Amino acid sequence: MSAPKKVVLAYSGGLDTSIILKWLQTEYGCEVVTFTADLGQGEELEPAREKALMLGIKPENIHILDLREEFVRDFVFPMFRANALYEGMYLLGTSIARPLIAKYLAEIAAQTGADAVSHGATGKGNDQVRFELGVAALEPNLRVIAPWREWDLSSRTKLLEFAEQNQIPIAKNKRGEAPFSVDANLLHTSSEGRVLEDPGVEAPDYVASRIVAVEDAPDKPEFIEVTFERGDAVAIDGTPMSPATILTKLNELGAKHGIGMLDFVENRFVGMKSRGVYETPGGTILLEAHRGIEQITLDSGAGHLKDSIMPRYAELIYNGFWFSPERLMLQALIDASQEHVSGTVRLKLYKGVARTVARWSDHSLYSEAHVTFEEDAGAYDQKDAEGFIQLNALRLRLIAARNRRLKG
Amino acid sequence: MSAPKKVVLAYSGGLDTSIILKWLQTEYGCEVVTFTADLGQGEELEPAREKALMLGIKPENIHILDLREEFVRDFVFPMFRANALYEGMYLLGTSIARPLIAKYLAEIAAQTGADAVSHGATGKGNDQVRFELGVAALEPNLRVIAPWREWDLSSRTKLLEFAEQNQIPIAKNKRGEAPFSVDANLLHTSSEGRVLEDPGVEAPDYVASRIVAVEDAPDKPEFIEVTFERGDAVAIDGTPMSPATILTKLNELGAKHGIGMLDFVENRFVGMKSRGVYETPGGTILLEAHRGIEQITLDSGAGHLKDSIMPRYAELIYNGFWFSPERLMLQALIDASQEHVSGTVRLKLYKGVARTVARWSDHSLYSEAHVTFEEDAGAYDQKDAEGFIQLNALRLRLIAARNRRLKG
Amino acid sequence: MSAPKKVVLAYSGGLDTSIILKWLQTEYGCEVVTFTADLGQGEELEPAREKALMLGIKPENIHILDLREEFVRDFVFPMFRANALYEGMYLLGTSIARPLIAKYLAEIAAQTGADAVSHGATGKGNDQVRFELGVAALEPNLRVIAPWREWDLSSRTKLLEFAEQNQIPIAKNKRGEAPFSVDANLLHTSSEGRVLEDPGVEAPDYVASRIVAVEDAPDKPEFIEVTFERGDAVAIDGTPMSPATILTKLNELGAKHGIGMLDFVENRFVGMKSRGVYETPGGTILLEAHRGIEQITLDSGAGHLKDSIMPRYAELIYNGFWFSPERLMLQALIDASQEHVSGTVRLKLYKGVARTVARWSDHSLYSEAHVTFEEDAGAYDQKDAEGFIQLNALRLRLIAARNRRLKG
Amino acid sequence: MSAPKKVVLAYSGGLDTSIILKWLQTEYGCEVVTFTADLGQGEELEPAREKALMLGIKPENIHILDLREEFVRDFVFPMFRANALYEGMYLLGTSIARPLIAKYLAEIAAQTGADAVSHGATGKGNDQVRFELGVAALEPNLRVIAPWREWDLSSRTKLLEFAEQNQIPIAKNKRGEAPFSVDANLLHTSSEGRVLEDPGVEAPDYVASRIVAVEDAPDKPEFIEVTFERGDAVAIDGTPMSPATILTKLNELGAKHGIGMLDFVENRFVGMKSRGVYETPGGTILLEAHRGIEQITLDSGAGHLKDSIMPRYAELIYNGFWFSPERLMLQALIDASQEHVSGTVRLKLYKGVARTVARWSDHSLYSEAHVTFEEDAGAYDQKDAEGFIQLNALRLRLIAARNRRLKG
Repeated sequence: MSAPKKVVLAYSGGLDTSIILKWLQTEYGCEVVTFTADLGQGEELEPAREKALMLGIKPENIHILDLREEFVRDFVFPMFRANALYEGMYLLGTSIARPLIAKYLAEIAAQTGADAVSHGATGKGNDQVRFELGVAALEPNLRVIAPWREWDLSSRTKLLEFAEQNQIPIAKNKRGEAPFSVDANLLHTSSEGRVLEDPGVEAPDYVASRIVAVEDAPDKPEFIEVTFERGDAVAIDGTPMSPATILTKLNELGAKHGIGMLDFVENRFVGMKSRGVYETPGGTILLEAHRGIEQITLDSGAGHLKDSIMPRYAELIYNGFWFSPERLMLQALIDASQEHVSGTVRLKLYKGVARTVARWSDHSLYSEAHVTFEEDAGAYDQKDAEGFIQLNALRLRLIAARNRRLKG
Repeated sequence: MSAPKKVVLAYSGGLDTSIILKWLQTEYGCEVVTFTADLGQGEELEPAREKALMLGIKPENIHILDLREEFVRDFVFPMFRANALYEGMYLLGTSIARPLIAKYLAEIAAQTGADAVSHGATGKGNDQVRFELGVAALEPNLRVIAPWREWDLSSRTKLLEFAEQNQIPIAKNKRGEAPFSVDANLLHTSSEGRVLEDPGVEAPDYVASRIVAVEDAPDKPEFIEVTFERGDAVAIDGTPMSPATILTKLNELGAKHGIGMLDFVENRFVGMKSRGVYETPGGTILLEAHRGIEQITLDSGAGHLKDSIMPRYAELIYNGFWFSPERLMLQALIDASQEHVSGTVRLKLYKGVARTVARWSDHSLYSEAHVTFEEDAGAYDQKDAEGFIQLNALRLRLIAARNRRLKG
Repeated sequence: MSAPKKVVLAYSGGLDTSIILKWLQTEYGCEVVTFTADLGQGEELEPAREKALMLGIKPENIHILDLREEFVRDFVFPMFRANALYEGMYLLGTSIARPLIAKYLAEIAAQTGADAVSHGATGKGNDQVRFELGVAALEPNLRVIAPWREWDLSSRTKLLEFAEQNQIPIAKNKRGEAPFSVDANLLHTSSEGRVLEDPGVEAPDYVASRIVAVEDAPDKPEFIEVTFERGDAVAIDGTPMSPATILTKLNELGAKHGIGMLDFVENRFVGMKSRGVYETPGGTILLEAHRGIEQITLDSGAGHLKDSIMPRYAELIYNGFWFSPERLMLQALIDASQEHVSGTVRLKLYKGVARTVARWSDHSLYSEAHVTFEEDAGAYDQKDAEGFIQLNALRLRLIAARNRRLKG
Repeated sequence: MSAPKKVVLAYSGGLDTSIILKWLQTEYGCEVVTFTADLGQGEELEPAREKALMLGIKPENIHILDLREEFVRDFVFPMFRANALYEGMYLLGTSIARPLIAKYLAEIAAQTGADAVSHGATGKGNDQVRFELGVAALEPNLRVIAPWREWDLSSRTKLLEFAEQNQIPIAKNKRGEAPFSVDANLLHTSSEGRVLEDPGVEAPDYVASRIVAVEDAPDKPEFIEVTFERGDAVAIDGTPMSPATILTKLNELGAKHGIGMLDFVENRFVGMKSRGVYETPGGTILLEAHRGIEQITLDSGAGHLKDSIMPRYAELIYNGFWFSPERLMLQALIDASQEHVSGTVRLKLYKGVARTVARWSDHSLYSEAHVTFEEDAGAYDQKDAEGFIQLNALRLRLIAARNRRLKG
């Protein structure tokens, strides 16, 4: 295959993607376009611009974008409509950010006439798959260069040598090996690798970077009210906010109360198990609140159908199939359920737990008239239950009679 | 329909089922057989015997059984192998006890030659369905008498009048209306009705009867280790215990640390929503621990399949179909996955949260050799990921190319 | 409950619903509004008008509507987008017509200020459920009167007596018992009951009323081309036609070639098994053709997802939940898959079989470049398959290694 | 990677695998062990032995096995218990044979101390995946050599040159390019490629190699009776037969009557679509018969659950995951449903169609007492249907009332 001429690189400004930047220039002799996004990872982006300039990137080839609102509005919120959990536990904080980056890699490539894109994900993880499936679905002819699968810079020593040879500045704390690897965005922070590699050994306290230790959380509970419209959070304590503002606020609240820590061994799409520590403070509250408002606004038929397809939906996102037809089909199903998922949930935040304590809505399907232990004024005829049970039991009776007949 | 001659009554010894006992005698003139089970509800059973005798039941017609081990071994544990949650949240504490009672109603009826069974569940709830589907599946010709759907004792006043007229003793605290209704067994305590009827109003603190308020839980975390064999818990902190003993011990631990409170609005099988407060201290720890050991011992194919059928399995149990062929089929599937779900999970219990912090097993599928960030000595060839991604992307590329062709 | 004042009756003009009409008048003293629909059952509707008038219905209370286009466009076609089969075999010909009738019962009741609707379905079948769930979902306060569940006209003799007493004309061939019961519409004709009641006895030849015996079908195959747009058939042999016209034409073709007979034992929603003979000539061709066009235009991810939810979708329709939120959600999912299901299928019709022999489309995802046995000019790199297999095999290898380790 | 020392080759005796045999010897200098199986493909196996000897294989390295009974008993029959169809149509005739071959490759490798296995599947198809996943699951450390992905014999000319250079005899009819490629076993014959590559062009008549053209099938129908025990066919017309004998007999019957032709475009696991013509005479009859016996012996709960997981089960087999834990779990579920799937089905075979016309069983759940149009002697109380419908309608009514309230 001939060398690419222009490559859009997902560039964080950190050491690893700076090495990739330089490696692309030297290995392929190609023009490099950088793309750096603010997804709420909590880092300044301007240093990435300076560093890119320093590494010889033309100013017009540096793309820095604040994508926080798009991230929450078009990726995080649609996913939370589904109450998505991967393997029963993981809120998909890394998984859901990757297709957005893929989307911009593809778009910037189209705009700038690039013939390839590149990323810093390794060949062992899920992120390479998520980036590359996203790009394939959006720009099918675009080539992807994954340096970690290609180069021979397979040890820390070799990487640092390459950096020094190429005048890439190395922060002091990057000289040594980091004790674990971190990914962060507005939804979560994940940590994995090295000191976390043995799932039989507890994660050290210093792994938590975002959530206060539950022991240090306030001794008093805090109550908040989250308001939803059509399945999406739109206000906290009555104050309307944009999607990213809401998630930011919930993150603060969750972090303060020690909410959202997860120590988890998961199955990667590429076939192995890995262990991660995930911090998802706001997302954990949001899931609880969304479940809470669905409890009174969603019918059982709709709710059970949603629950039954959720594992598949979560798996698709985890595996990188955000832009696949089947994810879009499932999203259509989920969104069709959310028309009346509007109302307010009151939650108690305390010592690591966000718990729904009350919920109310104009769209409520809850009928006190039907459920009451008191006289219900004819809302419900208890005698109906007999016929209901008789017909539900009929097939069970026929089976039992058959089995008895055969034994008899 | 002619009157039943002998009826087996699920008898708690309380006021309501005592009224039913007497009502069956007076309304149908039939012989009554009582069945009272210890499912871990935490009440003495001997008073039920005395009360039955006092109400004219013959000694040989009084059946009192300690079913705690059978309950946990044959009902609770099989269900926990599935990580079953109804509507994403409810651990099915009431639902799972009903088929066991149905089983003994049917068995005692067969032994004693009774032609009917009776229970104290109302016509609005799920329990009537669960009792009656269970009985239908086991003794298809047995008649079920559900007094609450038949009689006209529709108010508290009428019930008390009936009791007084029939010399049924009324405890002082039963004169007034209870502020909510309670069901309890070894797995959980549920509260619902009256003060809980408005889901927009917080449950009063006094509803919790089993779990300490999280504010009052110890200020120090406690760590425990739960050991599993083939999907079932078999030891705590290295000490082997019987199923009921384990659940009892986990209940103590959970209750002490404020673990397992749920305020929940659910969809009943009979078509309405209801709100309950559930306390499931031991079960909440057990679910977390079971998920923890599955994380390292269960393959992704097995785990994802289990997760995908879980909502249906939970719904079957909730709806009372424990003895249906489809529940048995799903159980066969689940049990087939648990052969290697053996090992130990370390959990941190603190202020309302049970969290897995470590897990290890001889049966582990976790491969540090594959996942490591370090040199992996050839365990995994990162170049394989390229082909993996290419073929997974192929169909997405073909779609994108088609869509582009049509637009072009 | 007080007597209804005005009742809308689903009225066929036949003996049974004429008896119901009169019974409603005499039993409840209520005004009766008749609703008679042309769903393609192949009967004149004007006799129903005359008979209604004769039975004392006011002219303005007689509603006769040709619903064939609405039936096919809004009910049959959406269902065929899903390739729906109940229990693997049944094309749901009766089930899909019932919600349309329910819709008009509800609408006419609202228009005419009626407080009840009535139908002629018995208490043993599915149709009562389908009518009544449909009405409940559309007009929740409307009462439903199901005479077969209420009256004591439980034998043929009593029915005929009632008819004679009430001057209801009885056609000669209705004096005796019909050998089986028939339901028909544009999609299918079903026969059940009496001579068909023993599923171990072959259906007599005379049961088939619509499809020519395959032995008598033409000795020469006929080839047709069906064109689809977005999942719906829009043309036959290049001639655009309306939905009902297409189905009518396919019915002619299928009937002529002996296509679409099914002898089937099914599970009714009310808990029992029943045996029916179904004739669905056009629908059988349409399903084959729709599968044929999906084969080249639908991606595997979309197709497999559709297939996996199809049984549930079919069950919902069979059970009468057309207007439920979960059917609408599944429809949203299905419809989201059909955007590119456009193109033409060539079918061979011969002796009971409709078989796709060719299909083509501008929307095709079939890539000869990729699949060819010949040189593919680099469209596909066979070496990619190795990585694909390696990573798919990884978890299987880890399991095998674990199992070996434990045995070793 | 170092060269393998001893390789077990899946050897058909044909030109292609003979070339592979020689290529393995020359390319790797390794000892070759051949494995040739009779799966009912209808070819003599002794010529394979002679050819292997001629190509220098030691007699003790030649393994020829008749696996027809194992194939049908342990692979085909378990699959038919599930009524498995891939993408709604394909009976998985090729897919189901591959894991059996993989099993013997692994076993013979273990027996002979081979360190690799090899097969003749190309890099574009599914069979490579099925062979290699099977081997990985059974012998995780065994290497697989797939010559078609490795060598440069990429054209017919080069292959023939290689054959000539290596004294491999070339049958006259192998000089030219075959017009399509064929795979056969006791369950089916598949044809694909070349003249079949354009799915818009009808398959030529000469593609059919096994089933008589339906136009030439007998003008008289033939009736047969197939008896099942626990889900497996055990007798035809009352004569007990072994699994392979039954399938052989059904093949004769189906072939004679033109039954079991399928022209199909499918989605390969490796990401592309392909078109095949499949002939599955006996299997088509067997599926119809199995559905027929399930209709009366399987409860709706069991049947609907089976139907809902079938697409996933079929996909697993198609994709090569026969030995995966999730296939085994699904098999446990399916097998748990078959205990009572015993009885006899009468089928009419005629002009391309196998149709159930009657079925009977001691295990039948069909209750004429319940379903009859006649007096049912109290088996079923039609009034029960009212309560059944009321409670099923309740949630729909609550939704409709809510929606109305919001609009009003």
